[in-house]
Amino acid sequence: MTTDAELLAAVGRLAARLLRSEGSEPVRAAWPATEVESALGLALPAQGRPAGEVLASVAALLEAAPAMAGPRFWNQLFGGRDLVATAADMLASVANHSLYTYRAAGPLVVVEQLVLARMAALAGFDAGEGTICPGGSVSNLCAVVIARGEAIAASREEGVDGRACRIYASAEAHYSVRKAAMTAGLGRNGCRDIPCDAQGRMDPTALDAALTEDRAAGLTPVLVAATAGTTVRGAFDPLPAIADVCARHGVWLHVDAAFGGAMLLSAQTRGLLAGVERADSLTWDAHKVMGVPLLCSALLMRRRGHLAAQLGETADYLFQCDDAELNPGTRALQCGRRDDALKLWALWQHQGDAGLAARVETLRAQALRLSDLASAHPRLQLAEAPPSLTVCLRTPGADAAAVCDLLAAERRQLVGHGLIGGERIVRVAIVDPSHDEAALHALINDIDDATQRLALGPPQTWARLAGHSGGLS
Amino acid sequence: MTTDAELLAAVGRLAARLLRSEGSEPVRAAWPATEVESALGLALPAQGRPAGEVLASVAALLEAAPAMAGPRFWNQLFGGRDLVATAADMLASVANHSLYTYRAAGPLVVVEQLVLARMAALAGFDAGEGTICPGGSVSNLCAVVIARGEAIAASREEGVDGRACRIYASAEAHYSVRKAAMTAGLGRNGCRDIPCDAQGRMDPTALDAALTEDRAAGLTPVLVAATAGTTVRGAFDPLPAIADVCARHGVWLHVDAAFGGAMLLSAQTRGLLAGVERADSLTWDAHKVMGVPLLCSALLMRRRGHLAAQLGETADYLFQCDDAELNPGTRALQCGRRDDALKLWALWQHQGDAGLAARVETLRAQALRLSDLASAHPRLQLAEAPPSLTVCLRTPGADAAAVCDLLAAERRQLVGHGLIGGERIVRVAIVDPSHDEAALHALINDIDDATQRLALGPPQTWARLAGHSGGLS
Repeated sequence: MTTDAELLAAVGRLAARLLRSEGSEPVRAAWPATEVESALGLALPAQGRPAGEVLASVAALLEAAPAMAGPRFWNQLFGGRDLVATAADMLASVANHSLYTYRAAGPLVVVEQLVLARMAALAGFDAGEGTICPGGSVSNLCAVVIARGEAIAASREEGVDGRACRIYASAEAHYSVRKAAMTAGLGRNGCRDIPCDAQGRMDPTALDAALTEDRAAGLTPVLVAATAGTTVRGAFDPLPAIADVCARHGVWLHVDAAFGGAMLLSAQTRGLLAGVERADSLTWDAHKVMGVPLLCSALLMRRRGHLAAQLGETADYLFQCDDAELNPGTRALQCGRRDDALKLWALWQHQGDAGLAARVETLRAQALRLSDLASAHPRLQLAEAPPSLTVCLRTPGADAAAVCDLLAAERRQLVGHGLIGGERIVRVAIVDPSHDEAALHALINDIDDATQRLALGPPQTWARLAGHSGGLS
Repeated sequence: MTTDAELLAAVGRLAARLLRSEGSEPVRAAWPATEVESALGLALPAQGRPAGEVLASVAALLEAAPAMAGPRFWNQLFGGRDLVATAADMLASVANHSLYTYRAAGPLVVVEQLVLARMAALAGFDAGEGTICPGGSVSNLCAVVIARGEAIAASREEGVDGRACRIYASAEAHYSVRKAAMTAGLGRNGCRDIPCDAQGRMDPTALDAALTEDRAAGLTPVLVAATAGTTVRGAFDPLPAIADVCARHGVWLHVDAAFGGAMLLSAQTRGLLAGVERADSLTWDAHKVMGVPLLCSALLMRRRGHLAAQLGETADYLFQCDDAELNPGTRALQCGRRDDALKLWALWQHQGDAGLAARVETLRAQALRLSDLASAHPRLQLAEAPPSLTVCLRTPGADAAAVCDLLAAERRQLVGHGLIGGERIVRVAIVDPSHDEAALHALINDIDDATQRLALGPPQTWARLAGHSGGLS
């Protein structure tokens, strides 16, 4: 019989073990999907199993899954962790509040408001407000829905002909913008791709022309989604010029800074987002660069009132007391809302403004350092000067995707690839400040080594030589 | 200097303390919102604070917030917890996987598929599939978007005139259905309220008439959302008759069983959902009745393929390897997805099918027991025989809302209220099997006592007499 206290103590020990295993075995063997259920004994049982035994299975399962942190992980726009934020998130799971009403969540509502107000202020939204969404895709969707309601007043109550509406994003924007257009009834084609310059930034002149063309065709431009930190290149669309275009056409400006929002935390980097204070709304994912656990996406609004005006519903059985102001469920797409604010508040308490600024500066310095290493490298090539926190490398003589796959199969590095102007490159995401000089060197050396071997022959040979089944095609 | 292991050990101890405080102080003092920031020292600092100190603040904050579990909590459709599920969720925060690709989440993708397949099978969707969403509102929204795409083939690519589309739900359905209509571009009025019978169940004849009328008017019926377990009364819409109507009109049948889905876990209660196997889609929140932490809403589909066909996007930088089947991000509204499956898998391992069935049977027995206590009570009245897991009580001589507020202000019980046919009643949610006979008696006695006192005079008198500032209006 395991007591509650014993079980929770075991959670602490298993969590510590998980952290250690990320250091000692940072790239784990990939399991062929077809073997997972039987090999790991995952089948759901008719009769229950003892708590301690289940917890051990959970830990074993997590250690069999890819490690999402540690010195060899560069594969997503999140990585590493601030352990205080993680600890707060663990306690949020225990406390299990739903952030919809003050009656249900009390002071935790104020906690969410505090972090949102600070983020809004950093964006120059001094009279703004916000809501924390389960991911940047949901934040972007909410922005589209709100902008649609503002552009076409009848849409909230009466609906809208989505075929006559358009939103605009650069050709290198995140796919969630297109998905938001589809969800909101505009269709995927309702999201118009605006061409980029050679650095992957939206061309404001092309945006201007598209808006003029669509207006002339009788279409209603609903929202322009500029990107601050594109997924592959880390590029920042030119916000001042885009804001000018939006102002001229009277169109809602949304900035998808899911990846790049953290650049606002340091005076050294916030210039990348110059002009953001003119945006109407902003997506900023704290679970990416800032090191809090998934998910924590802030949707920030320059003006108060839009969230409730477009997303609010009355519900007699839920919103029973307190000002609407204190009931964040009136400003959200969701009803029940996990407390994803507490971990961000804990991070801020632990780091302070100064620590968060230093974090971003460290990451930027690491990106520049990796960029220097690549520039100076005899064989690898830097694809472009990194605008922010992704570094893109050419692997001459070998396909960059094959390089990534080989590194994963050989359990050396987890890193992904992308396209720049049709050319496939290795994309390194620099989001974990614990990655030190040695980690950067190991990464460069491993990419170089894989590239050289692949240049000699087909990848199958090398994967087999390395004695791994791979499982990652 | 706190080591990682020490910090995580502290998490275990603080979590245990939080559990104890739910027992010793189950209804906490309510903080006036204006005092929270300074009284609890919540302001975000310029310089960071030590980890241990922040963690202590987090714990203090959680103990100052309302307790969402424990013997006096009957206020939401979730309550209590299965501690093994909670423990798994805590470890999920540490491991921090994103369930979008097999490369990123490996075996955890299979874990999600296993729990979804079991839930789908329980719904009679033997060839089905599913996805876990951050809450029932998102699940319902996805169902509307998918049904819209199936009803009007061009809508996914070209968009749709939402003004010409309709969805249908009972007048007692959850507000998220109306919000989904708004989000999808149909407008709030695009959700048509279908009248209910005296027991709060959708009238299939009225549904039939509405569909006929709308078709004749040239409108496109997109989806019927039947409710299995309404929020206040716990009523179940008559699925066989509704499925007949949907089949006759060729309309997508969605069942919002966010609350009632758990009734499928026991042979004794699954009859409430008879006919669900004819639905096209189903929302079932495991974070409600089943005791896993927020959020864990399963959207289940009777047929494979609809999720990816309507929600899928290509993303070269993300979906880089493995079959689409193994990349659940192709079947989701979100991009990054917190691992909300692991806790449910852990619950199932701990309880087994048998334990989950027993859980539901215990809850149903408690609801009937409370209903008997109310029926036999000399003053309180049972508003109606409870269809499932909510019990609605009349408080003759006092306003039910005032009764709930008084009980909260006096820190005796947390329970909410609702409307049945315009009459305000106390709604007791029976979702925590650890509520024993004594807890049921205490609840009845406290409701009776508050009712009697309120019947004597204005609530202000009593709140002041009790010596509490209240803070809950």
